[in-house]
Amino acid sequence: MGKVSMHEGWIRLVKPSVNLPSLKDNTADADRVKKGIEKVLHCQNIVFDLELVKSMPSLFRKYEYEVSTLLFQDKGSWHLIDLYPSSEEISLYLAAVDLGTSSIAVRFIDFFTQEVVEEISFTNPQNKIGSDVLTRIHFASQGSGLGKLQCTLLEKLNKELKELAQRRSVLQHRIVGMSVAGNTTMTHLFLGLDPYWICREPYIPAINTPEILKASELGLQICPQAPVLVLPNAGSYLGGDLVGGILASGMAKKDEISILVDVGTNAELVVGNSEWLVACAGAAGPALEGGVASIGMMACPGVIDRVRVNPESGEFSIRTIENKPPVGICGSGLIDLVAQLFMAGMIDVRGKFVRDKCGDRLRREEGLSALTIVYAPETGTAEDLTLNQSDIDSLLRSKAAMYTIIQTILEMIEVPLQKISDFYIGGTFGSYIDPRSAVTLGMIPDLPLEIYKPLGNTSLAGAEMALLSAKAREEIYNIRDRITYVELNVNQQFMNLFNAARFIPHTDTSLFPSVRVRLMS
Amino acid sequence: MGKVSMHEGWIRLVKPSVNLPSLKDNTADADRVKKGIEKVLHCQNIVFDLELVKSMPSLFRKYEYEVSTLLFQDKGSWHLIDLYPSSEEISLYLAAVDLGTSSIAVRFIDFFTQEVVEEISFTNPQNKIGSDVLTRIHFASQGSGLGKLQCTLLEKLNKELKELAQRRSVLQHRIVGMSVAGNTTMTHLFLGLDPYWICREPYIPAINTPEILKASELGLQICPQAPVLVLPNAGSYLGGDLVGGILASGMAKKDEISILVDVGTNAELVVGNSEWLVACAGAAGPALEGGVASIGMMACPGVIDRVRVNPESGEFSIRTIENKPPVGICGSGLIDLVAQLFMAGMIDVRGKFVRDKCGDRLRREEGLSALTIVYAPETGTAEDLTLNQSDIDSLLRSKAAMYTIIQTILEMIEVPLQKISDFYIGGTFGSYIDPRSAVTLGMIPDLPLEIYKPLGNTSLAGAEMALLSAKAREEIYNIRDRITYVELNVNQQFMNLFNAARFIPHTDTSLFPSVRVRLMS
Repeated sequence: MGKVSMHEGWIRLVKPSVNLPSLKDNTADADRVKKGIEKVLHCQNIVFDLELVKSMPSLFRKYEYEVSTLLFQDKGSWHLIDLYPSSEEISLYLAAVDLGTSSIAVRFIDFFTQEVVEEISFTNPQNKIGSDVLTRIHFASQGSGLGKLQCTLLEKLNKELKELAQRRSVLQHRIVGMSVAGNTTMTHLFLGLDPYWICREPYIPAINTPEILKASELGLQICPQAPVLVLPNAGSYLGGDLVGGILASGMAKKDEISILVDVGTNAELVVGNSEWLVACAGAAGPALEGGVASIGMMACPGVIDRVRVNPESGEFSIRTIENKPPVGICGSGLIDLVAQLFMAGMIDVRGKFVRDKCGDRLRREEGLSALTIVYAPETGTAEDLTLNQSDIDSLLRSKAAMYTIIQTILEMIEVPLQKISDFYIGGTFGSYIDPRSAVTLGMIPDLPLEIYKPLGNTSLAGAEMALLSAKAREEIYNIRDRITYVELNVNQQFMNLFNAARFIPHTDTSLFPSVRVRLMS
Repeated sequence: MGKVSMHEGWIRLVKPSVNLPSLKDNTADADRVKKGIEKVLHCQNIVFDLELVKSMPSLFRKYEYEVSTLLFQDKGSWHLIDLYPSSEEISLYLAAVDLGTSSIAVRFIDFFTQEVVEEISFTNPQNKIGSDVLTRIHFASQGSGLGKLQCTLLEKLNKELKELAQRRSVLQHRIVGMSVAGNTTMTHLFLGLDPYWICREPYIPAINTPEILKASELGLQICPQAPVLVLPNAGSYLGGDLVGGILASGMAKKDEISILVDVGTNAELVVGNSEWLVACAGAAGPALEGGVASIGMMACPGVIDRVRVNPESGEFSIRTIENKPPVGICGSGLIDLVAQLFMAGMIDVRGKFVRDKCGDRLRREEGLSALTIVYAPETGTAEDLTLNQSDIDSLLRSKAAMYTIIQTILEMIEVPLQKISDFYIGGTFGSYIDPRSAVTLGMIPDLPLEIYKPLGNTSLAGAEMALLSAKAREEIYNIRDRITYVELNVNQQFMNLFNAARFIPHTDTSLFPSVRVRLMS
């Protein structure tokens, strides 16, 4: 029956002790088994869906009332998900989903061992309709756009879930529970809710706290009664992905103050501890609207995720995912690359290419200066991989926005940098970020490097935790309720700070003493 | 907002106070209104169905957040049924349904005044498939029989409910709550549950306690989220109709001991008080299987419901429903008729026709003695209305079973007749029963007539009470849990008692002193 920790779950397999029907005990089939479950779970509210009751008379007789029942808890009741013959060994699975705007990640978990048996990620199929949230919101409001966005997503999810099940040699109805973390727009589209008002002042979502839904209600082709937990959001720009991230980081339980930055398609930031949590989102800074990701690529085989530039020779050494021939660059690789170019003197404090240092690698491409990172013979695309001035400008705007947001919010809540005990970096984009490179660029403050903790996909980790543990699930609502969302005031002062932060690492180099030291050495 | 008693309801209209969205309060639409409701209902568990959330963003803006919300309570949560603009006056209705095997009755209730605005009854459309429960159970197990039985019923219900709404000039989605009382087989067929095991030893229903269902789940074309309360049963032969009847009679709240007899297609009997309730059902007596109703007709215009026979002249005076020309006879009329024939000496203690007394009215018809009750020129069918020996024998078997059951159960639980403070007669068939005639026949014990209280359709009354009052709804589960069902042992002793009871009023006339007195006078 698995680990002790299973008893901390809000999805449980229970084997009720059931007396066989007789003339002396004419209790109905459903009520008979309910009574047995009540005794095990010490709960009077056991709910059986009508569809399951329909199958009970024949199943109970087939299994001679020796059944194991799978239930989930919600609002003081336990709801039956499915039932199985006690005599057979069964395999059951759970799926935790990070519903990113660009990329979707799924952890496939063995219900009994609670171990992740497989993790996959794939492009969000809504990308074909629009790569960013605003395009999708607009599309959703046109005719049957919303339905199309939802269907596209569900079809892909169903296909991937089916294949995950097949690889474990079970049918997909053995997937008996699911959690979904995503930004507010993505969860709205997943639920078929119109996100129209999310991007319109005063930015009101349709819902903050979706109920636990049943898979069949949503068109998910897993066990029909499987509970689907959609992580709650705290506003249009503060999604369940961030709430899940806060949970996964553990920052909401600590006395010391931490920062969590989720660098995804948007940049979101939370500061706080066990007593308070203040959050703001990058969408407040207009420079971030283009998105850090616009010049990058999603992590996949062949994508450059680490770059070193030899300042003496100007030689590039790159690392790609799975060591495949390079085809593009992901977020962490881009930050590495630009930081290294700066340290090698190939770009200046404004991010402009330094012709002398760049040499042959520099040329004009569609009216822009462009630096060849990898030459065609060595790439996986048979074309040169280049970085142009516009890419750098875009990254610098983004990093400036990030830094300014951190700076502004810390000033606003009067927390000096020295009080930060941990700085967590989460999100797909920020998964493998090298904190030293990010500090070099002036994207994040010049704190001791050990304070920076890249956490990988915190949204997915949060979804997994909330799916497996009743306590963690409760905690997400607790966290969400405790978050104070701060709408950043993009006024003249913000713009001044932003403009000062567009330099590498910053106009005020005294803010980045470690970078100054490294540049001197 | 209606009467004070509305606040006792488990369906309530609430006008939450909602702050308009602003940059300072970015709470989502659904959660914003939820908060307002929480304050009014003093409950944290407010549940919005996803389908309703989908419509919220546009509706709230259309109504400027001035909405009235209709909710129902279940298991500690309040569930949204629908929402309306606060500025408009709306009409809402509830429907209480008695789902009889032969006949269905509906009370259409104004939600605000809690008054019955119309009551209808119609033949159960499943009659076309089979007139009795056993035939339908058999039909349900053949191919798509169950689905057909359920569909037939739903189609008819939907049609009648639509017309009820139309007569109040509203659409049927303004019917926002429903309760259904019926015997265990009928509620199973209503819910689409296979009743196969109900009639097979040890007689186990699929369910005793259906959850509150949503109308859309069942295919009821009223407000999709309207709650449908199906009254719980206490076994295969002790349906929600009887549980509702006990509620309506009030016997479960009194210190004194009462009896409730529900004379429908089956005969069911409950004895008890506020401390205990013992029930048994007529299906235990084989003589009742033919059913009292087999020679009668359902109450409808032209049906004879009262008969007087002048013992001197032998003249019949009959009363028909709505004073239409007679077309048949209903239960109460039949009991009257046979009792009057006996008092007039036209039948003897064995129920056989007394030729001398019957005169010209008596003749042979298809090999049986038959008495003409109404001659062709005066009937609504242009044929003589006759009562034959077989009709009488059948009634006497039924009345003997009824009396024997009463006698047996009172002996079994050691309650003397003198301890009975009230004897309630419920059920469609027994609605207008004349206790004096029933005593004359020896169908019910010879108690002072004021103890007998015909209650009409107690099942329907119980359904109405449970629909309107949270306390009454709680009480039905309480009653159901307190009933001890007694399987009558049809042994030699029972058969001896039964045979003795087949005479009019009884072989042992000392049991019926009042009848003896009347016969002598």
